[in-house]
Amino acid sequence: MTIVLTTYDWVPDFPRGHVRDIRVRWLLEELGQPYLVETVPLRDKTAAHLKCQPFHQVPFIRDGDLALFESGAILLHLAAGTDLLPDARRPLIQQWLFAALNSVEVFSMAWLLAKFFDKDEAGAARREPLLRQRLSQLQDAMAGRDWLAGDDFTVADILMADILRLPAQNGMLDDLPGLAAYLERATERPAFHKALSDQMAHWRAADAQAAS
Amino acid sequence: MTIVLTTYDWVPDFPRGHVRDIRVRWLLEELGQPYLVETVPLRDKTAAHLKCQPFHQVPFIRDGDLALFESGAILLHLAAGTDLLPDARRPLIQQWLFAALNSVEVFSMAWLLAKFFDKDEAGAARREPLLRQRLSQLQDAMAGRDWLAGDDFTVADILMADILRLPAQNGMLDDLPGLAAYLERATERPAFHKALSDQMAHWRAADAQAAS
Repeated sequence: MTIVLTTYDWVPDFPRGHVRDIRVRWLLEELGQPYLVETVPLRDKTAAHLKCQPFHQVPFIRDGDLALFESGAILLHLAAGTDLLPDARRPLIQQWLFAALNSVEVFSMAWLLAKFFDKDEAGAARREPLLRQRLSQLQDAMAGRDWLAGDDFTVADILMADILRLPAQNGMLDDLPGLAAYLERATERPAFHKALSDQMAHWRAADAQAAS
Repeated sequence: MTIVLTTYDWVPDFPRGHVRDIRVRWLLEELGQPYLVETVPLRDKTAAHLKCQPFHQVPFIRDGDLALFESGAILLHLAAGTDLLPDARRPLIQQWLFAALNSVEVFSMAWLLAKFFDKDEAGAARREPLLRQRLSQLQDAMAGRDWLAGDDFTVADILMADILRLPAQNGMLDDLPGLAAYLERATERPAFHKALSDQMAHWRAADAQAAS
């Protein structure tokens, strides 16, 4: 059964490349698994959307009879039993997947929202040291190994690397060469390039349709 | 092998009852699984602590040779294969576990931190509608069922209910009777009472030791 991935029909320029379907696309490319893309409206959100994602967000998937939201849960489900989430190393990989979301992204998003959405420079300045500390602690924790859960790239690296992209683009990894190298190692993988290119093509197609 | 749960040696009054070891204690009580408690200093944090938890937080556990941090990952590991996380319903239970952390707690913590830590009333007022919306959406999503992932209490309910306690204590569930009833259903379980009572006894013992 082909997996159906749902994302928005259109988004403004700013989040393009970062809408969270990128995580699912990346994993599916790593697994060589084909998928279909469907959309829900970003503006004028619908009741049908709410039935699939109770918080009116994306992504969500259908995998046969199973409907699933939350990017972390989608990644764990799709990667289960593959080389990216082998059963024997599952607890450790899950640990790093949760760390990406709850010990890094929470701080990254708080800083990004204050700085770029609220334009609250004082708030951003208050949050920046917390984010820098988390990133530095992450670099220390990874010292001596290439990937989060050991020698092999896993589904946790997909999530962590995606989460590091925005801090990196805003200079937060400039003095953290180990973490910057990790992010480069992850995002130079062909599966990431394909996922990013496919997401960007999706927005271009939306622009073209809106213009026609 | 007895599980060893590590929490802080002492915390001030405010977080007592809410330090995140409560989630692990609750699950272990539900499972009837004995455990030992060890501590790390809250003040004067140590390098040894950092080796077990790279972000200098708690809880973390040892389960035989396995060391694990991140409360979400600890819960998934300890509940795996039990009635609280049966394999057949794993994707859905994981979905709600991630939703608790990433679609509810993120908004709850942002509001609580602004209001009670930063004493930033404007910031808290900006975040309150987002939290209220999430809570209302959660209540809608649960309409017609007692527990998050269906008819049975699962590990996802432990995490969601624990996360709802602080919003509830601050009046956020007063106009959400369905969600308030859900929280009561969860927290009237004997395992929650035992976990809470054991955590509070831990802080009282710390006070007694400090005073002696």
